[in-house]
Amino acid sequence: MPQKFVLGIDFGTESGRVLLVDVENGAEAAWAVVPYPRGVMDHHLPDGTPLDHDWALQDPRDYLTVLREGVPKVLRDAGVRADHVVGIGTDFTTCTMLPTLADGTPLCTLPAYERNPHAWVKLWKHHAAQPEAERINRIGAVRDEEALRIYGGRYSSEWFFSKVLQIVDEAPEIYSAAGRLLEAADWIVWQMTGLERRNECTAGYKGMWIKGRGFPSPDFFHALDPRMKNVVAEKLTEAFYPVGSRAGGLTPAMAQLTGLKEGTPVAVGIGDAHAAVPACGVVSAGDLCMIMGTSLCHMLLGTQRSFVEGVCGVVQDGIVPGYWGYEAGQAAVGDLYAWAFRTTGGSPELLTEKAARLKPGQSGLMALDWWNGNRSVLMDADLSGVLVGATLATQPEDIYRALIEATAFGTYTVIRAFEARGLNINRLVACGGLAEKSPLVMQIFADVTNRAIVLPPSLQASGLGAAMLASVAAGVYRDIPHASERMVGKTTRSYTPDAGAHRVYEALHAEYLGLHDYFGRGGNSVMKRLKALQQSA
Amino acid sequence: MPQKFVLGIDFGTESGRVLLVDVENGAEAAWAVVPYPRGVMDHHLPDGTPLDHDWALQDPRDYLTVLREGVPKVLRDAGVRADHVVGIGTDFTTCTMLPTLADGTPLCTLPAYERNPHAWVKLWKHHAAQPEAERINRIGAVRDEEALRIYGGRYSSEWFFSKVLQIVDEAPEIYSAAGRLLEAADWIVWQMTGLERRNECTAGYKGMWIKGRGFPSPDFFHALDPRMKNVVAEKLTEAFYPVGSRAGGLTPAMAQLTGLKEGTPVAVGIGDAHAAVPACGVVSAGDLCMIMGTSLCHMLLGTQRSFVEGVCGVVQDGIVPGYWGYEAGQAAVGDLYAWAFRTTGGSPELLTEKAARLKPGQSGLMALDWWNGNRSVLMDADLSGVLVGATLATQPEDIYRALIEATAFGTYTVIRAFEARGLNINRLVACGGLAEKSPLVMQIFADVTNRAIVLPPSLQASGLGAAMLASVAAGVYRDIPHASERMVGKTTRSYTPDAGAHRVYEALHAEYLGLHDYFGRGGNSVMKRLKALQQSA
Repeated sequence: MPQKFVLGIDFGTESGRVLLVDVENGAEAAWAVVPYPRGVMDHHLPDGTPLDHDWALQDPRDYLTVLREGVPKVLRDAGVRADHVVGIGTDFTTCTMLPTLADGTPLCTLPAYERNPHAWVKLWKHHAAQPEAERINRIGAVRDEEALRIYGGRYSSEWFFSKVLQIVDEAPEIYSAAGRLLEAADWIVWQMTGLERRNECTAGYKGMWIKGRGFPSPDFFHALDPRMKNVVAEKLTEAFYPVGSRAGGLTPAMAQLTGLKEGTPVAVGIGDAHAAVPACGVVSAGDLCMIMGTSLCHMLLGTQRSFVEGVCGVVQDGIVPGYWGYEAGQAAVGDLYAWAFRTTGGSPELLTEKAARLKPGQSGLMALDWWNGNRSVLMDADLSGVLVGATLATQPEDIYRALIEATAFGTYTVIRAFEARGLNINRLVACGGLAEKSPLVMQIFADVTNRAIVLPPSLQASGLGAAMLASVAAGVYRDIPHASERMVGKTTRSYTPDAGAHRVYEALHAEYLGLHDYFGRGGNSVMKRLKALQQSA
Repeated sequence: MPQKFVLGIDFGTESGRVLLVDVENGAEAAWAVVPYPRGVMDHHLPDGTPLDHDWALQDPRDYLTVLREGVPKVLRDAGVRADHVVGIGTDFTTCTMLPTLADGTPLCTLPAYERNPHAWVKLWKHHAAQPEAERINRIGAVRDEEALRIYGGRYSSEWFFSKVLQIVDEAPEIYSAAGRLLEAADWIVWQMTGLERRNECTAGYKGMWIKGRGFPSPDFFHALDPRMKNVVAEKLTEAFYPVGSRAGGLTPAMAQLTGLKEGTPVAVGIGDAHAAVPACGVVSAGDLCMIMGTSLCHMLLGTQRSFVEGVCGVVQDGIVPGYWGYEAGQAAVGDLYAWAFRTTGGSPELLTEKAARLKPGQSGLMALDWWNGNRSVLMDADLSGVLVGATLATQPEDIYRALIEATAFGTYTVIRAFEARGLNINRLVACGGLAEKSPLVMQIFADVTNRAIVLPPSLQASGLGAAMLASVAAGVYRDIPHASERMVGKTTRSYTPDAGAHRVYEALHAEYLGLHDYFGRGGNSVMKRLKALQQSA
C-alpha cells in the first residue's frame, strides 16, 4: 500500500505555513512558509489611505497565495503525487474576520469598496473596536447574557461582534453591502470547497455561538444597534460544523490552483491555537497546553463547564469533541521580549545569557506584563505595562528578566483561576516558537508555576493539528484522540521546577497580584486616563 | 590699584573645580578641573576589600590633590600672582563625612585602619545607612525631637548621624578611635587653616544642629545607642561659624602646597548647592534656586521658619545670613537621564531630538522618578522607580521624555508643598550642568511648573558662590548680598511656560501624585519588599 499524506495549512499573522505529513505516523514529509505579500496593514491601505492607531488589516488574496505557492512546493519537495494526498486541513488566526458578498467575494476586492478600511480583513490584533467591546459588555451585563458569561463576563475588542459593531458604527455602507460576515478560517474553507461550512470552534470562542442554543436573540443585537437586529439571519448562519468534520471536496478551480486532486476532502476550519492542542498530545483533562509565540494561548480540556475568571472562552467540543474546551491567554509574550530587545538595543543572545545569571528577586525589579493590554483575568485592552523597582543600577537584563517573570506570573494567575473553580492542572505542555527557542523562558515558567513543562516532538503544532483534522475528515481515523495516538510522537524534552526559586516567585507573585488588582480592578484607573490623554494629544 | 582675585574651590562628586575670579566683578580669570585620582569607591577599597551594595566612599587625600594641582594651574593660566589672591572659599558635597584623629588625621590614612571601609570618607550618596536612618526617625518621632522637625520629620540615610550610627553599629572600633567626626567641608578648611572651624550650613542641613539651641541632648543620642551618648562632647563641637566668615589664614605648609601666600584668608565651608544660591543672584525671598546636575537641589530663602513637607532642611542663616534657608531636593535627575541613555543604548542627541518632538501626554507613558529613592516629600531611600503606561509601541524617546517629566513633577510637588505653607515661589532660577545643556529639560520644567525659569550668567555657580564667600571673608564686601550685586552678572537666558502644555501636565501631575501617595505613603509597600527580597537573593 502506498504512503498516504495529509496537508495541514496554518494561516498565521505574517505568513502561511504548509505542512505535508505522513498520515500513518505524523512524520513531516515537507513544509513551506509563504509570507503574505501585503503582510499586516497597520499604517495604510495599499492605495495609501491612512489607518488609525490600533488598526490591523489583511488582504484575503494573500491567503490564496499561500495555497497557490505553498502546496505545489511541498508536493514537489517531498516528491509526493497529488493522488496520495487524502485530505486537507487548515487552521487560522482568530478572530480574523471579513465582510463579503453573499457569494463569498471579499468586499475589499471590489473597486467600489477597496478604499474603505472596513472592507478589508480585520486581523485578530486589530484593537480599534474597544469602544464597541465596552458597549457589548455594558449591554450584555445589564441583560445578563449567557453569551458573555462563557467568556468570563468580558467580551474582547478583538472578537467577532466587536469588529462587526465597529463596521456598523463607522462604515454602515459596508455593513449594508456585506452579504456575509465571517471568520477568515471559514472563508478559506469556502474558497476551497465552494461551500460555506462554518466551524464550531471559532464561532464558540469568538462569535457568541453556543452549541445547542445558537446565538443571542435579535433583541440583544438590536440593543447594541437597531441596524444589527437581524445580523444572524441576514449575514451569518445557524449551521456550524464540528472540529474534525468534512466540509466538502476541493473544487476544480482550487484543484487547478494547488495541483491537488479535485474532490480531495477538506476539513472544516479551526483556530490556530486550538489546532495545536491535540498536536501536543493533549486529548484529555489535566494538562494545560500553552501555545507560546508573540502572544500566549492557554488551552485546557475539561469534563464539565465552569465559569472561570480569566477564561476567554469555554466551548463544548470546541477543541476536542467530547470535552469542554477552555481558552485563556496573554496578549503579549514573545512580543514583549522583542520589545525589551528593541528598546535596550541589546542582542537577544547576550541579554539572555546575562538574564540567566540572575537569581529570582535579585534585580529588585518587577513588572505587569500588559504591554498589549490584558487578555487574561481582566480582559481589558486599555491596560498597559508597568515596571516597579527600577534603580540607577537597573540593567537591560534586569528588565528583560522582569518581563519574562511577569509573563510567567500572568500564566500562574490564569492557572490559579482554573484551580479555584476545580479544574486541576497537573502539567504544562508548551509549544510554539518560544517553547522551542527559549530555555530560560521555559525554566522561569516552570519555576513560577511550580509545574513540570513538557514539549511535544513536533515544531509545528498548529500545522500538524490541522493535518490531524484532515486525517479525521478523510476518515483515516475515527476521531482526534485516535489521530493523536498515531500521529504525535513521544515527548523527550521537559523542564522541572526548582523549589527554591518557586518560593521566591511565590512572594513575587503576591506582589504581582497586588499591583494587578490595583491597576486592573479600579483601584487606580490611571492607565485608562493616560490612554485618553494620548488620544487627545 | 592692581586687580584682586579670589579663589572658589568646588569639591564635587568626581572632581574638584578651582575657579579664579576678579573680586570686583566676578569675571572668571581661569578655572581648572582636577579629577579625584581614586574617584568614587563603590565596589572595593584600594586594597581590594569589597564594599557592600549601596556604599560610596572617597579618599580625603584626593581633596588635597585638587589644591596641589588646581590652584597653581589657575594662577599660571591667568598669569595672576599669589599676592593678588585676597581670599579662598570652598564648597563641598554634603553630607560627606569622615572619622579622624583628634588632630584631623583621617583614620583611613593610618595602616591600622585603612582596611576598614568605615575609616574612609562616606560620600553624600553612600546609602548603606538606611536602617540607621529608620532608627533615628523612629526614636526621634517618639521623642518629638525638634531636630527632626526641621527636616520635615524625616532624617535621611545620607546624613551625618545616620552615617555616624552606621559606624557605631558596624565598626565600633572605628567609632572609638575617631577623635573627631566631621564634614569633609570642614576637614578641608581645617587642613588649609590648621583650625577646626566648622560651618553652620552643613551642621544645620545635615547635622541636627540648630542655631541658638545646639544639638539634641545626650539622652537622644543615648536612645540611639548608649555608646553615642556623648558624641557631641567627645567628637564634635558646639562652636559653628556663619557662612561668609573667616576661618583663618592659610598655613605655611598649605601655602607651599598651593603656591599661595601664607595667611591668605580662608572662608568657612559651605554645602555646594548652598554656595550656588547667591551666585545665581538669589539673595532674597521669592525665587527658587534649582541646582540641576546628577541630582537636584531646591533652595529657597524665607523670612520666617515653617515646617514644610518635602523640605529636607530649614536653617537660620544657612544660605544667606538674615534669611531662613530652605532646602529640598531630588535624588536622581541627570543621573536618571543618563540611565535612560545607557539603558536604551540611544545617543543623548538623537533621543533628545526625538523626545522634543513629542507633545505632552502623547506617549501615554508616565513615571515616578525614584530611581535613587525619594529625597523630597517622602524622604525615603528605599523607594524605587516606576513606569506606567508602556505598550509595544513605546519607544526609547518616550521613556526618556517620561523620565524628564517625572523629575519635573517631582519639582512641582516640592513647589506646591512650599506654597501650601505660605512660601510663595514666583520664579525659578536654574544652574548646573543640566540647566546649561538641556533646553528640552528646562522647557519641560517651565511647562510643568507653569513658571518662568531664568539662568544665571555664570556656568560655575557653586565655585563662584565659594569665591563670593571668600570675598566677604576677606572683607572686600560687607555681606553676601553686596557681593552678589557686584560679582553676579545680568541674566540673559530664560524659559517661558506654555499654557497649553501646562494644562496637560496639570492632569498628568494629578496622576503622578496618585501613584506617589500609593507607593510612597504606605498604600502598597511593594518597593520595600522588593528591596528586602533583593537583599536576601
